[in-house]
Amino acid sequence: MQKPTGRIDADGNVHRDAHVVPLPQSVSPEARRYLATPFPIGEDWPATADAAAWKRQIALVDAGLRQSLEAMLPTLPVRTEKRTLGGVDVYVATPHTLTPEQRGRAVLYLHGGGMIVFGGDLVRGQAALSALQFGCTSYAIDYRMPPDHPYPAAVDDCVAAYRALIQELRPAQLVVGGSSAGGNLAAALALRARDEGLPSPAGVVLLTPEVDMTESGDTFVTIGPVDMVLKGGLMSVNLLYAGGHDLKEPYLSPLFADFTRGFPPAFIQAGTRDVFLSNAVRLHRALRRTGIEAELHVWEGMPHGGFGGTAPEDQELREEIQRFLARHCRARRT
Amino acid sequence: MQKPTGRIDADGNVHRDAHVVPLPQSVSPEARRYLATPFPIGEDWPATADAAAWKRQIALVDAGLRQSLEAMLPTLPVRTEKRTLGGVDVYVATPHTLTPEQRGRAVLYLHGGGMIVFGGDLVRGQAALSALQFGCTSYAIDYRMPPDHPYPAAVDDCVAAYRALIQELRPAQLVVGGSSAGGNLAAALALRARDEGLPSPAGVVLLTPEVDMTESGDTFVTIGPVDMVLKGGLMSVNLLYAGGHDLKEPYLSPLFADFTRGFPPAFIQAGTRDVFLSNAVRLHRALRRTGIEAELHVWEGMPHGGFGGTAPEDQELREEIQRFLARHCRARRT
Repeated sequence: MQKPTGRIDADGNVHRDAHVVPLPQSVSPEARRYLATPFPIGEDWPATADAAAWKRQIALVDAGLRQSLEAMLPTLPVRTEKRTLGGVDVYVATPHTLTPEQRGRAVLYLHGGGMIVFGGDLVRGQAALSALQFGCTSYAIDYRMPPDHPYPAAVDDCVAAYRALIQELRPAQLVVGGSSAGGNLAAALALRARDEGLPSPAGVVLLTPEVDMTESGDTFVTIGPVDMVLKGGLMSVNLLYAGGHDLKEPYLSPLFADFTRGFPPAFIQAGTRDVFLSNAVRLHRALRRTGIEAELHVWEGMPHGGFGGTAPEDQELREEIQRFLARHCRARRT
Repeated sequence: MQKPTGRIDADGNVHRDAHVVPLPQSVSPEARRYLATPFPIGEDWPATADAAAWKRQIALVDAGLRQSLEAMLPTLPVRTEKRTLGGVDVYVATPHTLTPEQRGRAVLYLHGGGMIVFGGDLVRGQAALSALQFGCTSYAIDYRMPPDHPYPAAVDDCVAAYRALIQELRPAQLVVGGSSAGGNLAAALALRARDEGLPSPAGVVLLTPEVDMTESGDTFVTIGPVDMVLKGGLMSVNLLYAGGHDLKEPYLSPLFADFTRGFPPAFIQAGTRDVFLSNAVRLHRALRRTGIEAELHVWEGMPHGGFGGTAPEDQELREEIQRFLARHCRARRT
């Protein structure tokens, strides 16, 4: 194989020549298959103000997920129900099989989808998948989203649901978690809970988290299109979500929060082909620097969002998440 | 800034267009200065069999380090002495100021330099720097190196020194550590100690470790020349070191060892611009998968070997290493 070439100029900029990044041989066959499967979400987004165009595009992306979830949901060993918590729609999923310890834990789950897609009834399937991933009951919030409901509607919904849920469950048995945009909301919720004097959850699980909406990290450039899912970032979507707010505000970009004021123990995950790798490692460092307990897990060759859910690497991630819950959630009061 | 572009072909290969990777804005000013300073080691190495050419090149690289160490060593708050351990030359460095807890700890340190450079009297300065980095007495081994002494001479020396040192210190107060090639030797030593029935050290500290001499990880390609230090890898040097042995052997490439048979608690570090990032995350996963205690720390924008030693990020790394020692080393028997 030809080794990629480049040169560094006098200002420290690296000029990389065109090159081919082959499928990695250092991941599982299932992961390789996933990396070779075209990912349906592109980079062409409407103008910020064109709500109708956004809604058409959102419907298209949602239709793709609906098709796969509808085939999958009946096969999952999970019971689901829809209810409300603090006035917010929530899908609750409980695995058929749980150990006594797992029965004493729960996750308030914030779904991914760039803050714009995968809402409504699609949350039921994501509740089911997250219940299996976390190994406990999942309360998956159907938070409001743009274009009709920009920031802070989603965070407000998360806080309202959390306030209601900690009337039913002790915070010490509850983690807050999510992937991608859901990792953003999980971190924002933990900050809002702290700032509003609510009890903290037992931990936060931030999977390839979108904690920097300004996209200032190095891997937005260095990884770029090698991340076959994000292909460089989501700035158009971030601007739609922010609705004119400064992207640097800590509830929009939790990476920039003041962690000396506290934060729950954190589980942070990313991949070496993940544009959000910088998000993950920078948040890990920001937490460690202020003495917050935080663990980092990075998977070889993994793009944003994992290898599709059925690769051995995805299973390893589930096991790490469940070990984190086992360490941090305290059993239900009896 | 122009976003890097590329396309994925039907086989999953990513074709990246030529692009510029600017200096990251997400690191400290000191780190940016370091990234903009040309790194003197290139990629042109002699033919494996040309020992004389290797010695000339090694002397040239060593002369560069000698110059900077000679200026620095007298300024460091460290006392050094040369002695032997198990017949191997060792430089022992002790910081002038240590807490009572730190006085009960030690590191057996294996210097970096691709298994070919930075040996002999240069180990004295590296002993001093590692004593300050680990916050305790450092026993830095002047192991034998190619071209005169290929594998397994270096590992044999590490084992001989370790055998002798654990007659003086309890293994429970001792970690084994090193950076780059030194990370390889630290891991190989831990495996040899295990396989020869010796007591394990309290932990291993593997900094941007060269644990895969086959260079099979994804970041050898994806990061490539963006790592201004390694610029893609060290295969010529690895072949010289191996001396005809299979690069996949676990004492050459500890990543491929059988960890179900045990390994000490591990601290593993890398950077997002570090060609050895795949080495680090794959070893972290291999250890976690078999239930070994292992923590991963990745610094934003950091190339192989850190930011030169004086950036805030380097200081953060020192603090993390010392926290690891504080957790894992048990105090000296009184």
